[in-house]
Amino acid sequence: MPAMPSQEVAAVDDGRTPPARPRKRGTTSRPRGRHSGDVLLDAASALMIERNSITITFTEIAARAGLNSALIHYRFGGKDGLFRALIERDVGGTFPMLADLVRADLPAVRKLDLHIRAITQTYFDHPYINRLVAVLAQDVEGEGARFVSERVVRPLHEAQAAILAQGQAEGVFRAVDPMLFYFSLIGACDHLFQARYALKWAFAVGDIDDTLRRDYAQHVLGLLMGSLMVRPGE
Amino acid sequence: MPAMPSQEVAAVDDGRTPPARPRKRGTTSRPRGRHSGDVLLDAASALMIERNSITITFTEIAARAGLNSALIHYRFGGKDGLFRALIERDVGGTFPMLADLVRADLPAVRKLDLHIRAITQTYFDHPYINRLVAVLAQDVEGEGARFVSERVVRPLHEAQAAILAQGQAEGVFRAVDPMLFYFSLIGACDHLFQARYALKWAFAVGDIDDTLRRDYAQHVLGLLMGSLMVRPGE
Repeated sequence: MPAMPSQEVAAVDDGRTPPARPRKRGTTSRPRGRHSGDVLLDAASALMIERNSITITFTEIAARAGLNSALIHYRFGGKDGLFRALIERDVGGTFPMLADLVRADLPAVRKLDLHIRAITQTYFDHPYINRLVAVLAQDVEGEGARFVSERVVRPLHEAQAAILAQGQAEGVFRAVDPMLFYFSLIGACDHLFQARYALKWAFAVGDIDDTLRRDYAQHVLGLLMGSLMVRPGE
Repeated sequence: MPAMPSQEVAAVDDGRTPPARPRKRGTTSRPRGRHSGDVLLDAASALMIERNSITITFTEIAARAGLNSALIHYRFGGKDGLFRALIERDVGGTFPMLADLVRADLPAVRKLDLHIRAITQTYFDHPYINRLVAVLAQDVEGEGARFVSERVVRPLHEAQAAILAQGQAEGVFRAVDPMLFYFSLIGACDHLFQARYALKWAFAVGDIDDTLRRDYAQHVLGLLMGSLMVRPGE
């Protein structure tokens, strides 16, 4: 039996912890002495969740944070800079755990399970992530597209490729193209969170609760495992 | 052996036909007497493909179509109306074939195969579709979100639910939640086309050619089938 993963890895989602969302939603009081950049990011994040929109003004963020809106320009340089900082915090902040997961003494099947749960948890906690990425990467040639690709896509892809290679070495996964795998995994994980309009109007589901998130993660995992796993006798 | 599907169904994608894209790309001459609305939609579609952007002006569409820009307001009422009409043409136009597919005398496995190929073909032919949907459905409470859900999501979901039920009746598919299936299938299919930035900057793939589209459709089909199919002995 493999050793248990580190606390950090286990914290990705052990299926028993209560949902983290809404994270600091609606709170305005901040511990004194916190970095003003963090306070502004918390305020922006809370406003985006409340409004279900990334269309918020610097004045609104400043008012929520209790800080001067000139600070946003000073800290982040503008809207794109703020968006990048939010992605860096919300997605980039999970990558140390992802690196721990890849290194952990666990079977590849369990790693893929934890990875899929972590991705759906990230979308669940930060439902505006898809929209930030869409705005930043709108111009395929632009700096935002490059930032998202290098800071988000590449680490995810490399971790997945390592897990796939481990599973093949263990004799439990078939060979699969890691690039095609990346797009199908992320697309499958993200669409429930991206297409809230469909959930509401075509399926009459008003919000994604933690049960739906877990069911969906399990469904996506089932898709991938059913395809990846080598079956007895093959 | 089941009867062959109708010509229309077979035309979805038999894996042998040459790619349809670029459809009328760059052409400006139109048969006399064509409906001016169609001419305007062709012009808007061609411009969006050329620019890899949905940010085009009515003046540009009118110039490309050789028509007066006031006609766009008259025909479509504004940008949202134009976007809806494009979705209606590009996606809605494939639904009669989807209905034929659902009714066809074919095994469920083959129907799912053709369905996945048709979806990736639609994204391939009209790479701006995701962005039109994102703009229309941005406000979850808005009319655009409702339009996309009722006109696009619901017919796709209903067709998929029918194919899934057929496969279960045939004893080849496991039971699966059709809603979760919808999100995972569409998300997996669309992400390659949506995340062009990732393809370019993280994987150094500049464009999606027909080979990549087919490989991807095959990969997504493999994911779904591996999970869905009941295995011998179960």
